[in-house]
Amino acid sequence: MINLIAMGSAAKDASHQMSLSQTNDKNDALETIAKFMEQKSEEILASNHLDVKNGINNGLSKALIDRLTITPESLLNMITDIRHIATLPDPIGVCFDKRVLENGLQIERQRVPIGVLGVIYESRPNVTVDVTSLAIKTGNAVILRGGSETINSNKVLVHIICDALSHTNLPKNCVQFVNSTDRKYVTEMLKLDKHIDMIIPRGTNKLHEYCRETSTIPVITGGIGICHLFVDEHADLDASIPVISNSKTQRPSVCNALDTLLVHKSIATKFLPEIVRNLQEYGVTFKVDEKSFSILEDVRIDSITKCISLAKPHEFDVEWLSLVLGIKIVDSLEEAIDHIHRHSTNHSDGILTENKANANKFVQAIDSAAVYVNSSTRFTDGGQLGLGAEVAVSTQKIHARGPMGLSELSSYKWVIKGSYTSRE
Amino acid sequence: MINLIAMGSAAKDASHQMSLSQTNDKNDALETIAKFMEQKSEEILASNHLDVKNGINNGLSKALIDRLTITPESLLNMITDIRHIATLPDPIGVCFDKRVLENGLQIERQRVPIGVLGVIYESRPNVTVDVTSLAIKTGNAVILRGGSETINSNKVLVHIICDALSHTNLPKNCVQFVNSTDRKYVTEMLKLDKHIDMIIPRGTNKLHEYCRETSTIPVITGGIGICHLFVDEHADLDASIPVISNSKTQRPSVCNALDTLLVHKSIATKFLPEIVRNLQEYGVTFKVDEKSFSILEDVRIDSITKCISLAKPHEFDVEWLSLVLGIKIVDSLEEAIDHIHRHSTNHSDGILTENKANANKFVQAIDSAAVYVNSSTRFTDGGQLGLGAEVAVSTQKIHARGPMGLSELSSYKWVIKGSYTSRE
Repeated sequence: MINLIAMGSAAKDASHQMSLSQTNDKNDALETIAKFMEQKSEEILASNHLDVKNGINNGLSKALIDRLTITPESLLNMITDIRHIATLPDPIGVCFDKRVLENGLQIERQRVPIGVLGVIYESRPNVTVDVTSLAIKTGNAVILRGGSETINSNKVLVHIICDALSHTNLPKNCVQFVNSTDRKYVTEMLKLDKHIDMIIPRGTNKLHEYCRETSTIPVITGGIGICHLFVDEHADLDASIPVISNSKTQRPSVCNALDTLLVHKSIATKFLPEIVRNLQEYGVTFKVDEKSFSILEDVRIDSITKCISLAKPHEFDVEWLSLVLGIKIVDSLEEAIDHIHRHSTNHSDGILTENKANANKFVQAIDSAAVYVNSSTRFTDGGQLGLGAEVAVSTQKIHARGPMGLSELSSYKWVIKGSYTSRE
Repeated sequence: MINLIAMGSAAKDASHQMSLSQTNDKNDALETIAKFMEQKSEEILASNHLDVKNGINNGLSKALIDRLTITPESLLNMITDIRHIATLPDPIGVCFDKRVLENGLQIERQRVPIGVLGVIYESRPNVTVDVTSLAIKTGNAVILRGGSETINSNKVLVHIICDALSHTNLPKNCVQFVNSTDRKYVTEMLKLDKHIDMIIPRGTNKLHEYCRETSTIPVITGGIGICHLFVDEHADLDASIPVISNSKTQRPSVCNALDTLLVHKSIATKFLPEIVRNLQEYGVTFKVDEKSFSILEDVRIDSITKCISLAKPHEFDVEWLSLVLGIKIVDSLEEAIDHIHRHSTNHSDGILTENKANANKFVQAIDSAAVYVNSSTRFTDGGQLGLGAEVAVSTQKIHARGPMGLSELSSYKWVIKGSYTSRE
């Protein structure tokens, strides 16, 4: 039996202490966690191995298994990331928009922590470490609720983190873990608006929807990426192939991987067989519209014919998270923009073109968290964009958008100083 | 019968056009609205007069009548505010955090409108005009749902605004009004997450709670101010009196008006009779703790005795919105901070003191949207703090905090340009 209200209340108390803690103390805590994780690498890998084994036995998809696996290399990356966060500037306490009003009032805004973060996630155990590190650096307390499929990894990771914290000056309740896979605790957590200031879900669309519908706490939604690249008639086609390949195949199970390729009709006959031939070597299969299908069939190459099928209409609204790529021919830049308006989840969408006017038009018209010109979509990531690490990728338009790093885990307060000043 | 989905869909379409509209066109629209409002002042005042008459007949409180009344002077202020907003810099399109990564990617963030705002408000008809002006300036579409008590004023104001807009280059559906007092439309509006990007409630605590609990759209909550001033033992007492008086009596019906005065015990015997004598001349009555009561009774001045009564415990959790002031004696700065932690709505809280260390300690420990030193609490207001006007005062910690002006009605997108760049 878990008492979430008690956990929330303890988190709130810890958050008051955290908000006053010094940068040095927070960085020391991060270093201590990194050290403890190094020392207990074997334990972490063994617990994760158990989760992977259970996952396979339970018939989880390859994409899901990929998401939950910790390799010695990815563990090293996690630890490096923690140390990297310690080196980043502390946003808390920073003053901005400082000025003196005509009436003599001195006003400024001061960066403060959000307070208590509630993080509800699935699959990826690295979230436990990423979120904790970012929360600590920004003076927030955090309540973690991981998925059942990584319960063993998460338990061990949180145990190590809390053990490390007990050797530091930070309050021990700044990191807490809901040690149960019972979903009723998710629902309860989402109603703790007296104790939790922000909910960050990381997982499937269904999880995000459930949080939005159930929560009385502000929810940061995002992470669902139906991502598009449009190959304009003025694209450098040879240069485009590796970019498309990188977007689709480098890590197909993540949200910034490419889902739909839009191709201008005037280059389709030349380009489609080339890109399909290239990608099918990586094991990609294709859901294509009728026009593309007929072009690709006409090529009469067996290896191509084998990996294409006609896309059903709803399949342009699927986040594939696997080696499947939708392809559609469009008549114009405008049709590409229109398709993206209707099917994108406003995560990451891009254009490949040598034509600056077309690039600018695309950038202006597409309102996604990340809009790309001549680049892989795989850069929508806090680490890649220089935020240190990321706590989530927001696709909503309030608070934060795109990768959320340190600043996005802070709020501000107005500090106003007068000399016994009254309002006229 | 109002079709909210059709309204939402029209608003979404309008918001796409709005996001591409030029600063000049938006400013021209504001000027046109101001001009039309000037020309139709009589009509506006007559419609408002009807609302005031109905309000009085329906037994609305004085505070509520104050909130819904438009005087010729306040109408002029509204019109001046619109023109002022036209003179402010347009935040949309502004680029920030520009840099080039090691791999050559050029990244920046570009300010974009939020999209569609849903504003649900009560009482104050000036919200109709403020919100519309700020939404237009920031390229947002807006759906307004005002209270039944100002339906006549709002209808006329929106009619004038839409009439004005039809003479401009902006899409006519960028401002829409739910022309019904049936509350079911509020509930429906709160579920339009496909069409509305942000809900801004302005009204009672109950309205805010209802929005938080019902909405599947991000809600900006705030506007409820249980505001405190702490008179430190090191305060300049003579100078403090006008500041307290200004905080309490200048406009008692608004959220940044003072609710509770905390007084250090070492100055209470001297100070309490003075402040009570001063404020009771403005018609203030006092809910005081036992210690204050006994000090004030001991003075044996009839005019004082008549206006004080013992505060019930829950009365330190009341936003008075009228000429009532809570008073409590505290033993120390720490007790004052602790009282504020427990009773403040984190809107506006201040300290009056000559002691810098105490002032700093207070500023650090109090986590309210606006924290004051030696100033009236009445400055928590977008206009006063130089934001042009305000769409709401947020007391939550995500997106925006305190007065929300132009920038707070925008989001951003990441724009990333490469030269066919892939992720390693």
